[in-house]
Amino acid sequence: MTEKEFTLEGLSEELSETAERVVDLIKEKNYTEVKKIATELPAPDIAEIYAEIPIEIETLFFRLLPKELAAETFVEMDTEDQRRLIDSFTDTQLYDILSEMYIDDTVDIIEEMPATVVKRILKNTSKEDRATINTILNYPKDSAGTVMTTEYVRFKAEMTVGAALSHIRKVAIDKETIYTCYVTDENRHLLGIVTAKDLLISDPETVVGSIMDDAVISVSTHDDKEEVALLLDRYGFLAMPVVDNENRLVGIITVDDAIEVIKEESEEDFAKMAAITPSETPYLKTNVFDIWKARVPWLLILMISSTISSAILAGFEAALPAVLVLFVPMIMGTGGNSGGQSSVTVTRSISLSEVDFSDLPRVFWKELRVGILCAVALGVVTFGKVMLIDGLLLGNSAIDLTVSLVVAISLSLTIIAAKVIGAVLPLLAKKIGLDPAVMASPLITTLVDAISLIIYLFCARGILNI
Amino acid sequence: MTEKEFTLEGLSEELSETAERVVDLIKEKNYTEVKKIATELPAPDIAEIYAEIPIEIETLFFRLLPKELAAETFVEMDTEDQRRLIDSFTDTQLYDILSEMYIDDTVDIIEEMPATVVKRILKNTSKEDRATINTILNYPKDSAGTVMTTEYVRFKAEMTVGAALSHIRKVAIDKETIYTCYVTDENRHLLGIVTAKDLLISDPETVVGSIMDDAVISVSTHDDKEEVALLLDRYGFLAMPVVDNENRLVGIITVDDAIEVIKEESEEDFAKMAAITPSETPYLKTNVFDIWKARVPWLLILMISSTISSAILAGFEAALPAVLVLFVPMIMGTGGNSGGQSSVTVTRSISLSEVDFSDLPRVFWKELRVGILCAVALGVVTFGKVMLIDGLLLGNSAIDLTVSLVVAISLSLTIIAAKVIGAVLPLLAKKIGLDPAVMASPLITTLVDAISLIIYLFCARGILNI
Repeated sequence: MTEKEFTLEGLSEELSETAERVVDLIKEKNYTEVKKIATELPAPDIAEIYAEIPIEIETLFFRLLPKELAAETFVEMDTEDQRRLIDSFTDTQLYDILSEMYIDDTVDIIEEMPATVVKRILKNTSKEDRATINTILNYPKDSAGTVMTTEYVRFKAEMTVGAALSHIRKVAIDKETIYTCYVTDENRHLLGIVTAKDLLISDPETVVGSIMDDAVISVSTHDDKEEVALLLDRYGFLAMPVVDNENRLVGIITVDDAIEVIKEESEEDFAKMAAITPSETPYLKTNVFDIWKARVPWLLILMISSTISSAILAGFEAALPAVLVLFVPMIMGTGGNSGGQSSVTVTRSISLSEVDFSDLPRVFWKELRVGILCAVALGVVTFGKVMLIDGLLLGNSAIDLTVSLVVAISLSLTIIAAKVIGAVLPLLAKKIGLDPAVMASPLITTLVDAISLIIYLFCARGILNI
Repeated sequence: MTEKEFTLEGLSEELSETAERVVDLIKEKNYTEVKKIATELPAPDIAEIYAEIPIEIETLFFRLLPKELAAETFVEMDTEDQRRLIDSFTDTQLYDILSEMYIDDTVDIIEEMPATVVKRILKNTSKEDRATINTILNYPKDSAGTVMTTEYVRFKAEMTVGAALSHIRKVAIDKETIYTCYVTDENRHLLGIVTAKDLLISDPETVVGSIMDDAVISVSTHDDKEEVALLLDRYGFLAMPVVDNENRLVGIITVDDAIEVIKEESEEDFAKMAAITPSETPYLKTNVFDIWKARVPWLLILMISSTISSAILAGFEAALPAVLVLFVPMIMGTGGNSGGQSSVTVTRSISLSEVDFSDLPRVFWKELRVGILCAVALGVVTFGKVMLIDGLLLGNSAIDLTVSLVVAISLSLTIIAAKVIGAVLPLLAKKIGLDPAVMASPLITTLVDAISLIIYLFCARGILNI
């Protein structure tokens, strides 16, 4: 029993120290002490230690772990560590580890492994598990079926509470959760849900069917996993039942997997909005070349698409006073920022299912008004700033009232256009099946850049009469 | 038992229809049917219906709900709906609702209410609850103490499993979770954890102390709530115990609250990265003026800070051939995008506690190499693009080999600088106690804009000899 506070940073440092100690102990062949240290730690911590010790001793370290803890630790490891370890296993060892694991964890690992390793894994699972794994692997990408687990507790409606509790006692060890149990008929049609709490507070003689909740909320194997995770969160469930298209229970999605989905999907949106191809590998563990591959195509696309702005600017420059060119970066930048604000807001609202295409008129009207308010505020300030700071303070004699007016009006119109475009594009993208998050990325900036230049050009022509 | 698939969009439409039906039924005074509809729905759905029905009948609708469901629904409502409802309550009604609620939910509501309402709420809670609420309200902002609940199940180590299960049966109704229980001494010092699963599979005569897990992971009331949520997620806990600085158990944080924290914190980062002041109100429910208030200060700051770029450009323009000005938006844009990629990546890694200040040298070295790789790729492409597209295709006769070279080299150096700055600034911000997410926002773009112009200026001077 320690009394120190837990933080992830502190934990990481502590585990590094433990890793060093483990290395020393293994060198001294003091395996008893290593075992003792390991069995006192939770699996994610052992996996972190495993990642830090030298490759030469990692297999030895792994074999010191008790069977169940070894399987739990294996699930928590990096893909690369898992692959190396599988290579070091005999078929019997692999079979033992795999039979200790939950099927959804096995599937997660299979999805990251090269074909030869997948073949070995499938060869070393029981026939029944192999069939289940193959079914799960065949569900569409990002569907509920791919994240569910097939190990849940199932009762018949006629069972008594007492019998149900005895059943839980017997099967608990192999089930991912025993706290939400499912009542089905003999064909696995989902009839109701009963929680361990319901069972505990009911009379042992009661029939399960009479205490179950039959207003079941379930999802289908083909539903989007993010929708499912948000639904589980909405109702505060510990698990969500997954049924096939004949309402037969085929699996459950537990709250820990739902958290993973929610985290993954928001990290994906962060990446896309920053014009990066999403990856599930943590930053520090991704090699330079992979980071480069995820970033450079987007930089290239955006760079080349900026040719449009350059071309507009080229036409513009010949026609207009040089003094106006000075404010191009400011107008383009503010336009980009304004559009970014609305596009990120709307894209996240789409991701969280708070907004959909049918809200387009409301979103348009909202952003138009926000845009006008922002335009007025920034227009007035810009007019003053251009006159006073750029004109008087920085002593640019080419700046007069008309120039300030052209800049302020162009900026205002750009802001309104950017806000509306930024809000509407993600909704349109979603409607036609594109990814709204990509719309919230610098791609919108490129579009807004071009539009802001055209607005600037027309304002200058109109007001300065050129 | 329905067989249709659940999606959040479909659910929303369905609830709108139910709301219309409820309005009709209330007009017909068919309250029995309204009650029947409501009792079959989970609280979050009733809260959504409540938000859609006209204000005149909402109080009436709420009073038709059974007591427990009414309290659950109240917790799920929008702040505005809650406030109106509290105003309509008599003191007795308010007391009844509050006594049905978990204390952490009461605290959440209090935090959003105006002072007069808070006063009424506190007046209508039991003396004991009031003391607890006040303690929780006094914990620092964003600390574990502010999100914990004080209603958990506690055992003495000497209790038998059978007695523990009986105890659970008795108190289950008032506890937020019964699935993770805590073993303490008589002074509430946390000794161990025992799950409902452990209790169910153990012999009723066994002593709780002998089956508890004493390698307890706990957090302190003052720990950051995001760290705590990530820690709970790391270990797959359903609840995390919170202790005071003498290791006395004061509360627990349940998995549903941890999910809220994770979601909230990533939405905050999204907002900050888009240069918006974060808000917890969903987009469609935020009024135009509040959206404006969250966005306009940042647009102003960024607009004014762009004066730096304008000033550099002003000095630049007088000295340099007009043709180079054409590429200013492209160089600044690519610099901004490059910096954005690295800053968003590093900022999220900091938020997820994957990276901290001690990783600065590794991050610097990684981004330097990624930057060089990107710089080479984009440099080569830009050189070709400027020569071929801008020069030949768009027929700009001022573009020659030297101009293309100046543009390509400036772009390459800008990319490297932007990548390194984007990665290092968030780490520095974190170190000196600033918010890294604000660094990932357009503020970095402003800085990179200025630096890219200076690089461009020096390259042009160096290569073109001006």
